[in-house]
Amino acid sequence: MKVYLDNAATTAMDDRVIEAMIPYMKEHYGNPSSVHSHGREVRSAIEKSRKKVAELLNASPSEIFFTSGGTEADNTAIVCGIHTHGIKHAITSPIEHHAVLHTLEECEKKGFIKLSKVEVDKYGALNLDHLQELLKSNPNSMVSIMHANNEIGNINDLDAIGNLSKEFGAFFHSDTVQTMGHYVHDLKSLPVDSIVAGGHKFHGPKGSGFLYVRKDKKITPFIYGGAQERNMRGGTENVIGIVGIAKALELAYEDMDGHRKHVEGLKSRFIDQLKECIPGVAFNGLSADLDKSLYTVLNVSLPPSEENSGMLLFNLDLHGISASGGSACSSSATVGSHVLRALGASAERDSVRFSFSRFNTADDIDYTVRVLKELYSVIA
Amino acid sequence: MKVYLDNAATTAMDDRVIEAMIPYMKEHYGNPSSVHSHGREVRSAIEKSRKKVAELLNASPSEIFFTSGGTEADNTAIVCGIHTHGIKHAITSPIEHHAVLHTLEECEKKGFIKLSKVEVDKYGALNLDHLQELLKSNPNSMVSIMHANNEIGNINDLDAIGNLSKEFGAFFHSDTVQTMGHYVHDLKSLPVDSIVAGGHKFHGPKGSGFLYVRKDKKITPFIYGGAQERNMRGGTENVIGIVGIAKALELAYEDMDGHRKHVEGLKSRFIDQLKECIPGVAFNGLSADLDKSLYTVLNVSLPPSEENSGMLLFNLDLHGISASGGSACSSSATVGSHVLRALGASAERDSVRFSFSRFNTADDIDYTVRVLKELYSVIA
Repeated sequence: MKVYLDNAATTAMDDRVIEAMIPYMKEHYGNPSSVHSHGREVRSAIEKSRKKVAELLNASPSEIFFTSGGTEADNTAIVCGIHTHGIKHAITSPIEHHAVLHTLEECEKKGFIKLSKVEVDKYGALNLDHLQELLKSNPNSMVSIMHANNEIGNINDLDAIGNLSKEFGAFFHSDTVQTMGHYVHDLKSLPVDSIVAGGHKFHGPKGSGFLYVRKDKKITPFIYGGAQERNMRGGTENVIGIVGIAKALELAYEDMDGHRKHVEGLKSRFIDQLKECIPGVAFNGLSADLDKSLYTVLNVSLPPSEENSGMLLFNLDLHGISASGGSACSSSATVGSHVLRALGASAERDSVRFSFSRFNTADDIDYTVRVLKELYSVIA
Repeated sequence: MKVYLDNAATTAMDDRVIEAMIPYMKEHYGNPSSVHSHGREVRSAIEKSRKKVAELLNASPSEIFFTSGGTEADNTAIVCGIHTHGIKHAITSPIEHHAVLHTLEECEKKGFIKLSKVEVDKYGALNLDHLQELLKSNPNSMVSIMHANNEIGNINDLDAIGNLSKEFGAFFHSDTVQTMGHYVHDLKSLPVDSIVAGGHKFHGPKGSGFLYVRKDKKITPFIYGGAQERNMRGGTENVIGIVGIAKALELAYEDMDGHRKHVEGLKSRFIDQLKECIPGVAFNGLSADLDKSLYTVLNVSLPPSEENSGMLLFNLDLHGISASGGSACSSSATVGSHVLRALGASAERDSVRFSFSRFNTADDIDYTVRVLKELYSVIA
């Protein structure tokens, strides 16, 4: 049996997304910047995609810029937000994705900003009082705090963070890669200045993404070249990626409640069975709290076991189960998870991030629990 | 009849490229950074693609980095080349693509460098003596000169420019977007430090590209995030784009001579018929010189004509012919061509860039000449 429980790393494409993309591989090949008929039909597809994304997010099409993915979008918001708005200080947390953390650290290294980090507790919850202090003592900051953590699933309160940022005149960027397509983002009411998406996290294509930047917080481009994306991103557009991400978002919004109910059911089932079958099992961060974490992510901390120590992902893989240790975005590196380290997780326990999608079934969960039970039977 | 003569803007995808990509949309969806079986099969496809590109260019796989296109690759080489190697002065020409020109101008605006431009004559030929002077008086420069011009087709002598750059210790980047897949690049002998590719210029996918950086001239990343591309570019890889560009390059190298012979034949036929049928026709840059210009590009300067003035592309489009005025990469903007302006081209004459691919036929050429003859018959 093959079971894919690494959907926070990437998801299988929806067949309907592939179908939407294929005409732009086979028939409509013009350059969208060309004024002739071959170009115009492609331009039209891009602008329809932009309008669709904007509608779903309750934004204006002029606030949506397509990128090569969530990471490029994060880099753009951060580097160009800092540059355009003359920002000299930034605030983030120690458990952000590397797309945010490394980008900010590089900005600090180059002398553009001083970087502060908001404290998190052992569950990865942000200390909002500390955020307020940092904002108070550093006017005109950039705040970059993710919507939900990709490893432990913790959901941050964007309203609280956004309102604090507003109060102290900060630019508030949020890495929404893990929530886009899984939760509703209503940009008329959400107090953020920029958010991002990576299409492959919600059954769209890899290499697709977008950046939302609020009208009154315009920024300069990150990639210079032609006049594409209203002069905001040079380079011939990845047309199939754009058509694909818009279609994927449309499908996500079409039945978000149904999708959530199904996936949340799987997560609950998994938690219940694990508690029953694996003595000593625990959960990292807030991931076992259904109200405070992504319904798509469960980060499991397993009891010390000589047989599985450092080998758990490998053992699961041998049984056909794909999951991740920490963030799969860089799990081929041998370095551990900076998120679990920041939470002070015990190095003696193996941690696995299981992450779910609407393509998973109860059978996937039951099989995975059986395998884990077997792997940990020696200590029972 | 529909005739596509805008192949320097973008090309139709080869069916064999699409076929190579589709399994990575439908079946192999893992994240290449994941260590499990879903990830490993995708990682393997990426590394095979890198190896293939490196082999074709006579480079090492560790020198090839996949990007979202030629423009991102140019931005990376320029911005990070300048940063990594402490470069304070750059040299380019006034007829470079905006991916190079705007990037360098932005670096100057931000105070990172001072920018000089090599003189070009009225045919767009570079003044190499001037380049030498600039190099002499500005040690540790970056030189960014394109291999071939996207509007007028002029081919620059990379050996001469590269050897001069070497002599004066400069970093030599060349925008090879228009020659990649159409000419052989042997990186063991070519004296360049970095070159780039955009897959959609040689029948590969839009949104795909790569950057070559010579081993001993390593640069820092442009996009920060995960450890992808050997820590050189954060962001989950555009797997279908990578598989597609490698396949497209493989196909290009498989029959480059045949492709060239066919396309060069079309260009010759076009030049001959235009000279015969349109009194007063001329050619911009060196594009009518088969030895000194791309075999894929012909930039035609048409005699003044009230009926066609400012309307020529539109009139051609009405007859089903897709071509471009100046660079199609930004031809939807109403600004004219910076390249033709730099050559001092007459504003009274309309210029059209016709650009060819192996998918064009003699019928395409004959039909286009008939239409042009008709459009210009009033002045005959």
